[in-house]
Amino acid sequence: MTRASQRRRVHRYTAEGPATGRADTLAGEEPLEIRLDGRPFTVTMRTPGNDFDLVAGFLVSEGVVRSMAEIVQMDYRSGIGPDGQRTYNVVEVRLAPGVALPDTSMERHVYTSSSCGVCGTASIEAVTKVSAHDPAEDPVALPVPALLALPDQLRTGQKLFSTTGGVHAAGLFRFPAAPSHDDDAPAAPELLCVREDVGRHNAVDKVVGWALREGLLPLRSTVLQVSGRASFELVQKAYMAGVPALAAVSAPSALAVDLADRAGVTLLGFSRGSSFNAYAHQERITP
Amino acid sequence: MTRASQRRRVHRYTAEGPATGRADTLAGEEPLEIRLDGRPFTVTMRTPGNDFDLVAGFLVSEGVVRSMAEIVQMDYRSGIGPDGQRTYNVVEVRLAPGVALPDTSMERHVYTSSSCGVCGTASIEAVTKVSAHDPAEDPVALPVPALLALPDQLRTGQKLFSTTGGVHAAGLFRFPAAPSHDDDAPAAPELLCVREDVGRHNAVDKVVGWALREGLLPLRSTVLQVSGRASFELVQKAYMAGVPALAAVSAPSALAVDLADRAGVTLLGFSRGSSFNAYAHQERITP
Repeated sequence: MTRASQRRRVHRYTAEGPATGRADTLAGEEPLEIRLDGRPFTVTMRTPGNDFDLVAGFLVSEGVVRSMAEIVQMDYRSGIGPDGQRTYNVVEVRLAPGVALPDTSMERHVYTSSSCGVCGTASIEAVTKVSAHDPAEDPVALPVPALLALPDQLRTGQKLFSTTGGVHAAGLFRFPAAPSHDDDAPAAPELLCVREDVGRHNAVDKVVGWALREGLLPLRSTVLQVSGRASFELVQKAYMAGVPALAAVSAPSALAVDLADRAGVTLLGFSRGSSFNAYAHQERITP
Repeated sequence: MTRASQRRRVHRYTAEGPATGRADTLAGEEPLEIRLDGRPFTVTMRTPGNDFDLVAGFLVSEGVVRSMAEIVQMDYRSGIGPDGQRTYNVVEVRLAPGVALPDTSMERHVYTSSSCGVCGTASIEAVTKVSAHDPAEDPVALPVPALLALPDQLRTGQKLFSTTGGVHAAGLFRFPAAPSHDDDAPAAPELLCVREDVGRHNAVDKVVGWALREGLLPLRSTVLQVSGRASFELVQKAYMAGVPALAAVSAPSALAVDLADRAGVTLLGFSRGSSFNAYAHQERITP
């Protein structure tokens, strides 16, 4: 598939002179339908590519699966367009026997899709019961210099952004254990996986799904660096995958901070290379 | 309600010296449940405030209503928290007799919620049948200098962004008719409405809902300026409200361009004051 980006004609205008035309590269955006055991589950607009990662991660985020053993098969077989060609826009998932299908009736869907009740407090309490992992128990040390370097490290992996300027990214970094001698410099964090998508949530789901498929859950000793802001739902996705720290280039919401606080997730915002803000669980941060 | 923003303690880290603590203002983010005639319809995470605008605009975007006459009542009565207090997180909508309730069964939901089928082409054709309005027929002239000024004009209305740095904004501008004499300077566009939200889609829905409640649909001769990127769904929202031009600070997706092209919507991206790119229907742009 080469649909992660597409070429379009664009006209550039400034205050001076006539418009100039040229070809431009744009991020692809297409619907992906996820079917569970033959039943429609959801449709998301996404950038084509790494679709099985996206589906696997979405199922983790929604609390449907906790390990790859619970996913028997994923394939594109069902997606056949009007022209008889495969669209690659439908992923059919077969779950292992005994994995509970999510209740997709609307009454139930209202509460599960957002993983919350009808007030902030209730929502957080509902969520904290769901995850199979407890990031609060993760003793990872997060040195300030290593955290400051994450946005630049992420940028080097953003191949689609460099051509389109129009996609979000999520990068997963493994932080090493503290050196056994005080005078040893700590090793640099290792970039495990970068994923890009027009949707912020999708980029994170693709990273989480990659980790699930690699057998890496729960994601202990990791930091998830994202290109956008830190919403409630991104903190929730980190929490469901057992990620102990989420760093965002832009601001967190108040609810994201509250959830991070309760879920034991270190939350950084305005992470832009020269400084960052810590909003929750800064006890993991070391000089 | 003063929940549009909240204060939290934050610690700021740099490469030099110890962390500094201070109070920070964060954007509020809470779930809003929308009920139609007593039935749960959807839940969206949103920044509290202008909720009735959000609900009305969402119903326009989803093709449920076309005028305020189709909404008999909106109220917060149903949202009572565990403490017996009103949460202001549930809006109950009573639709006029004869307005069709959307089919919220999952099989149908899959296709209506994203307003698309399972491939790009099908999705666009599905959408172009839905809108009550045809922006293609709007002859509004869009002078380059006026378009270049929109991001700055929008920024002056972004009160929440100036305190939190963490919300998206959408601003609706009415463009005047071309002057009858060639040597008259055209009047500046009039800022009709600005709305802010942690969600890009919500900010647009709040503007569209405001316009619906003011009896302004279809939004002829207007430009919708948004703070983020131009996704397929934002173009669709503009189209459903009859907006002839959408301008985004960041990039459009390829599908957004395709939909704008078919729907008759002028689409601008990278609109940042000194220049912008036009991706569709640039014939409305004048020097």
